[in-house]
Amino acid sequence: MAVHQLNLSQAFKIKYRNLPMNKFTRYLLIIIILFSLPFKILAKDGYELWQQYQLVENQQALNTYRSAISEIVFHGNSATIEIAKKELAMGLKGLLGKSPAMSTSVSKAGALLIGTLQSSDISPVKFDKTIQSKIETLGDEGYIIVSEKLRGKQVTIIAANSDVGVLYGVFHFLRLIQTEASLKNLDIVSVPKLKNRILNHWDNLDRTVERGYAGFSLWDWHKLPDYIDQRYIDYARANASIGINGTVLTNVNANALILTEDYLVKVKALADVFRPYGLKVYLTARFSAPIEVGGLKTADPLSEEVQNWWKEKATEIYSHIPDFGGFLVKANSEGQPGPQNYGRSHADGANMLADAVADHGGIIMWRAFVYEDDVPDDRHKQAYSEFKPLDGKFRKNVMVQVKNGAIDFQPREPFHPLFGAMDETPLMMEFQITQEYLGQGTHLAFLAPMYQEVLEADTYAKGEGSTVAETFDGTLFNHELTGIAGVTNIGTDRNWTSHHFGQANWYTFGRLAWDHSLTSEEIATEWIKMTFTTDEAFVTPVKDMMMDSHEAVVNYMTPLGLHHLMGWSHHYGPAPWIKDRHRADWTSVYYHQADSAGIGFDRTATGSNAVAQYFPPVSEKFSNLETCPEKFLLWFHHLPWDYKMESGNTLWDELCYKYDEGVKVVQKMQQTWDGMEKHVDSERFNHVKTFLKIQEKDAITWRDACLLYFQTHSNRPFPEGVEKPAKSLEYYMNLDPKYVPGI
Amino acid sequence: MAVHQLNLSQAFKIKYRNLPMNKFTRYLLIIIILFSLPFKILAKDGYELWQQYQLVENQQALNTYRSAISEIVFHGNSATIEIAKKELAMGLKGLLGKSPAMSTSVSKAGALLIGTLQSSDISPVKFDKTIQSKIETLGDEGYIIVSEKLRGKQVTIIAANSDVGVLYGVFHFLRLIQTEASLKNLDIVSVPKLKNRILNHWDNLDRTVERGYAGFSLWDWHKLPDYIDQRYIDYARANASIGINGTVLTNVNANALILTEDYLVKVKALADVFRPYGLKVYLTARFSAPIEVGGLKTADPLSEEVQNWWKEKATEIYSHIPDFGGFLVKANSEGQPGPQNYGRSHADGANMLADAVADHGGIIMWRAFVYEDDVPDDRHKQAYSEFKPLDGKFRKNVMVQVKNGAIDFQPREPFHPLFGAMDETPLMMEFQITQEYLGQGTHLAFLAPMYQEVLEADTYAKGEGSTVAETFDGTLFNHELTGIAGVTNIGTDRNWTSHHFGQANWYTFGRLAWDHSLTSEEIATEWIKMTFTTDEAFVTPVKDMMMDSHEAVVNYMTPLGLHHLMGWSHHYGPAPWIKDRHRADWTSVYYHQADSAGIGFDRTATGSNAVAQYFPPVSEKFSNLETCPEKFLLWFHHLPWDYKMESGNTLWDELCYKYDEGVKVVQKMQQTWDGMEKHVDSERFNHVKTFLKIQEKDAITWRDACLLYFQTHSNRPFPEGVEKPAKSLEYYMNLDPKYVPGI
Repeated sequence: MAVHQLNLSQAFKIKYRNLPMNKFTRYLLIIIILFSLPFKILAKDGYELWQQYQLVENQQALNTYRSAISEIVFHGNSATIEIAKKELAMGLKGLLGKSPAMSTSVSKAGALLIGTLQSSDISPVKFDKTIQSKIETLGDEGYIIVSEKLRGKQVTIIAANSDVGVLYGVFHFLRLIQTEASLKNLDIVSVPKLKNRILNHWDNLDRTVERGYAGFSLWDWHKLPDYIDQRYIDYARANASIGINGTVLTNVNANALILTEDYLVKVKALADVFRPYGLKVYLTARFSAPIEVGGLKTADPLSEEVQNWWKEKATEIYSHIPDFGGFLVKANSEGQPGPQNYGRSHADGANMLADAVADHGGIIMWRAFVYEDDVPDDRHKQAYSEFKPLDGKFRKNVMVQVKNGAIDFQPREPFHPLFGAMDETPLMMEFQITQEYLGQGTHLAFLAPMYQEVLEADTYAKGEGSTVAETFDGTLFNHELTGIAGVTNIGTDRNWTSHHFGQANWYTFGRLAWDHSLTSEEIATEWIKMTFTTDEAFVTPVKDMMMDSHEAVVNYMTPLGLHHLMGWSHHYGPAPWIKDRHRADWTSVYYHQADSAGIGFDRTATGSNAVAQYFPPVSEKFSNLETCPEKFLLWFHHLPWDYKMESGNTLWDELCYKYDEGVKVVQKMQQTWDGMEKHVDSERFNHVKTFLKIQEKDAITWRDACLLYFQTHSNRPFPEGVEKPAKSLEYYMNLDPKYVPGI
Repeated sequence: MAVHQLNLSQAFKIKYRNLPMNKFTRYLLIIIILFSLPFKILAKDGYELWQQYQLVENQQALNTYRSAISEIVFHGNSATIEIAKKELAMGLKGLLGKSPAMSTSVSKAGALLIGTLQSSDISPVKFDKTIQSKIETLGDEGYIIVSEKLRGKQVTIIAANSDVGVLYGVFHFLRLIQTEASLKNLDIVSVPKLKNRILNHWDNLDRTVERGYAGFSLWDWHKLPDYIDQRYIDYARANASIGINGTVLTNVNANALILTEDYLVKVKALADVFRPYGLKVYLTARFSAPIEVGGLKTADPLSEEVQNWWKEKATEIYSHIPDFGGFLVKANSEGQPGPQNYGRSHADGANMLADAVADHGGIIMWRAFVYEDDVPDDRHKQAYSEFKPLDGKFRKNVMVQVKNGAIDFQPREPFHPLFGAMDETPLMMEFQITQEYLGQGTHLAFLAPMYQEVLEADTYAKGEGSTVAETFDGTLFNHELTGIAGVTNIGTDRNWTSHHFGQANWYTFGRLAWDHSLTSEEIATEWIKMTFTTDEAFVTPVKDMMMDSHEAVVNYMTPLGLHHLMGWSHHYGPAPWIKDRHRADWTSVYYHQADSAGIGFDRTATGSNAVAQYFPPVSEKFSNLETCPEKFLLWFHHLPWDYKMESGNTLWDELCYKYDEGVKVVQKMQQTWDGMEKHVDSERFNHVKTFLKIQEKDAITWRDACLLYFQTHSNRPFPEGVEKPAKSLEYYMNLDPKYVPGI
């Protein structure tokens, strides 16, 4: 019902810039459009995500596309194929202004020929050798998009071994047009590098979302299974468009109720909606469920009645959802029950569940995010210490899900030492898409560069060039079972992710899960063109803004390897002063170790020696001040305030400059965005502008609060050029935001 | 991002049925529309409420309107006037396909002349005597819409004493067209019958909503004051369109934090958005706030420091919000603190707050919904017993807010005996719009007939014809201060109210608050035409369905005066078996009193004698079995199962028939709706269809659970024609829905 001033010329420009026509038609057209369109139409609330399907802006490209696609020949008739057909028709109608005619067989050059490789018309095609050889690698989800000659006619073929592969191919084809790529001599063979590309929803049954900052849970459990919200369908569609093929519906801090019949029929309803989009449903398994909803006295994984309870539960689940994906488990971590409550190992727990779902084709994702409640040692070391010895002890259908870093989704962490350390166990990467420690719902932080930094890091597990990505994509240790998980930033907010640019992180996760060799720039460019406009005057500056954004957040929050300086419980805003809590490793002082002598956490041999968990060349690199990257300096080293940095500055001065730089980059981002007003609809422009204002305010808070606090230890003045804090340390220490979302 | 099959002929029909044009233009037009519109456009998600502004469907009416409105002459330039201008332009563009030209002064016949009565052009108009006399009654919010001759030209004048009056007039004028009413010889003078028309949001600061079933709170406190959600604007606009002029943002079970500076700046941001729409902001005052956020030792209303604390707090609030409306208070009720904690009366408490806001023009709305924690007596009597003696003891700026009935928003209650009983105190009616006891977010229950039944009930306070409405609209006791409150059903759901027909209850509240003499049929017809279509083939059957809906809910839940049979805490579903709780009047058996002898709560002289609180003729009518309406029979009487009803049936048989009738009417509603498919967009059609299916399932649950339970007392068989329960009483008693919203 949004009221929007209608700007005729703007309306005309936005939608009709490129239609060829004489003055009269043009005039008639404006009149008609203005008289017929609801006024909201010029406003974009972001609900359509990267699937805007706006008329191709470049006239030449538009003409080329229109003439290049003469007809559509679609084979197959499954629910998935119907979705692909509808998507293609809708996409082309939006992008080209019209959808080419559907035909039962190729009748002219320029036909789009779509279906499985077994389809009549496609199966007889004589693909050349290179294509042929690639086709053999397609598997269940891969697809080809190739230009071919069929009975003397030039056609474009989108084909796969499966219907969902066809759907993925159609989305790729639409993306080519959305990004104004050429359709000439297409030679695309796309196969996902990872088998399981899964979203993790930390959604509770009361619809609150742990670490969710975009409203509440999409899952309206109360109205399920009867009422199917349109959002469920649009959610599946968005995920399919970027190749996400699984979703864990519930929080890792699990509630056993989800495993009761009352809820399983609700889960089934969602699974039925998601299935044709290639999206499998998973649940989190509360380890103590046999007691809580099963009425047993124990949840001991070696107890036969417990094992049988889980077997029967699995059978019950699969009777509702034949393609149920399996369980994600957080056990013996942060108060969650687990096998250790019974003196058993994580392997014992994981294997019991694995046996329960194995016959049904299910998998277990067992999280490595664990640490002793009685803080025996640097938390950095605990996942490795507990899981490394279990290597080889897990069933074939178990994956150990490891966070990108060893602490907990900090703005920047070095890669987790478990990657490469467990040859015999398939590991699964767990990234956080929701910005728990990265400004939550209101800060612009494009996370592709952060993901990339980890994926490309060299573990040296099998000598130089053993990247983190290769340790879990199956290439390094030849595992069949591979996967990646992303903790979602999705909620009930109209634009799904609170910040319009949060959509880019959802998009990035899907794209990297499919192909981790994509560069951040490629992903940003794709997303911008699909979400806003292909106009270079917008694409380039906005892409640059996105590329700088994560580093900016790192700088105004935790530069030079600092970490865990955030507020208590809500994690919103700075609190480097937090100390004296019931466990040291939940305080900030434990992590920054600042005193009059210096700052930083010594994880070398003279300290916790966590660095020893990395392979020699890496551990040496991090241990040695000469070779330790400065972005990780205070992560691994405790150094004097006067320590000389590469820049020549003292550590204290450098710290001040970094914090200040973080703020300045946000201010630069604001200028960039302000210059984009004419390229974007007013609703999204103002939304982002407001959020950047909030981000600037928060960035200043982070910089000033942290510097004022650290200054009480360094006893040094702020260097030249660093803006002096306007408020006192006391002011910041007294800030106490209430009801911060996502707790 | 909803995917909708595009149906060309449908697209054409819906939007272009009525444009006159030759074949070519028509063809060109279809092509253009199809090539330019996003496909979502045919789908309606209900966000636009009753402000759809679709092209007038009746061609003749459309032509008449187009020729009747030649130009728009708008006087004034306040923010409110700008909103009125924009609304009129947008509305007419949608309804007529084009918006008439704006002109600075009347240049031709058919001009729309709009502004305050003081505006040049309007002030010199010589209105005829009858109009003139009516104009004197307009006050601050009333308006006129009249056909006049101005300098020999026929014009339509929309005028008022204030800008907001003009805005109301514009909304009324648009409604005339939306409902396809005639614009000839207009002679409309509209003045609200009540001064304060206020929504009560039971919204908590964590965004949960007590008894809210449409998602979560609209108020995103965390992002306020920086981020202004478009929904705040659309909310204000919708309220202004139906004359609602106040909103209490927070739950009556209050949180003192809202009174802290951190939150007041957020409240101010909302007040600034709402102000130009004539919507005042109010807050709930936690009586113990002086202790909780003021650091005082007491909240005793007779303590000077407490009085001063509230005075200073009021001054602080008004420094942010100069037109702050005042406080709503729930005190000494259901565990809320209040003056009785200090041995003071409700008047002492209310007056202290009244004095704090009096100089600023604020009011206090003090709720009469109270009952002793130690259950001394029939709850029906307690509000009356406590407040009647306080009549005359309240300050001039205090209103006592009384629920429509004496218990608690039951599906049907006789009017509250306090209405008419407090001559010297302005009372405020409190209706519940949210369906706490009426099927919550998924049952279709049009509440106008329920409101009407209460408003038109005769209290006999000043002899026959002293309707409830007149006891609080100022006519009966000549109070200046008048008002009505509605506990909202609004939340973050895309369609605002969970059920599309829940929108009708929001609409109804606004319309009745303005003019309680409107009939339910008039309101239903208006709403249907504005929300769906003016096609009689839809309007009549859907109106009939709505008119039957509330009675149906009463019948399948609590027929013949039964009440309080619902589930524990969540109030979702039946639980007549609830007993043995820590207070008797929170159980079901306390209210239905069913035993082998009979059923019903004796409130006559032989029982609690609550009936004595009504004026004699009413008390006699309710006491006497000959005259007590059967719809209230078991509310006032305990009767044997074999008691003879007017129908000739025994009470037991009649009870069975009533429950069964409730279900049958729901099934009839389903048939009616199924027949409407061609008249309504698929998204809303299917949404309502699904909800009616849920309602049928729940209605059967209510009928069968209650009858099976009561049968254990009556020991009588179900009569002929009543469907036999498919499930057992045990089955229903074991139902235990989890995480029901709104708790």
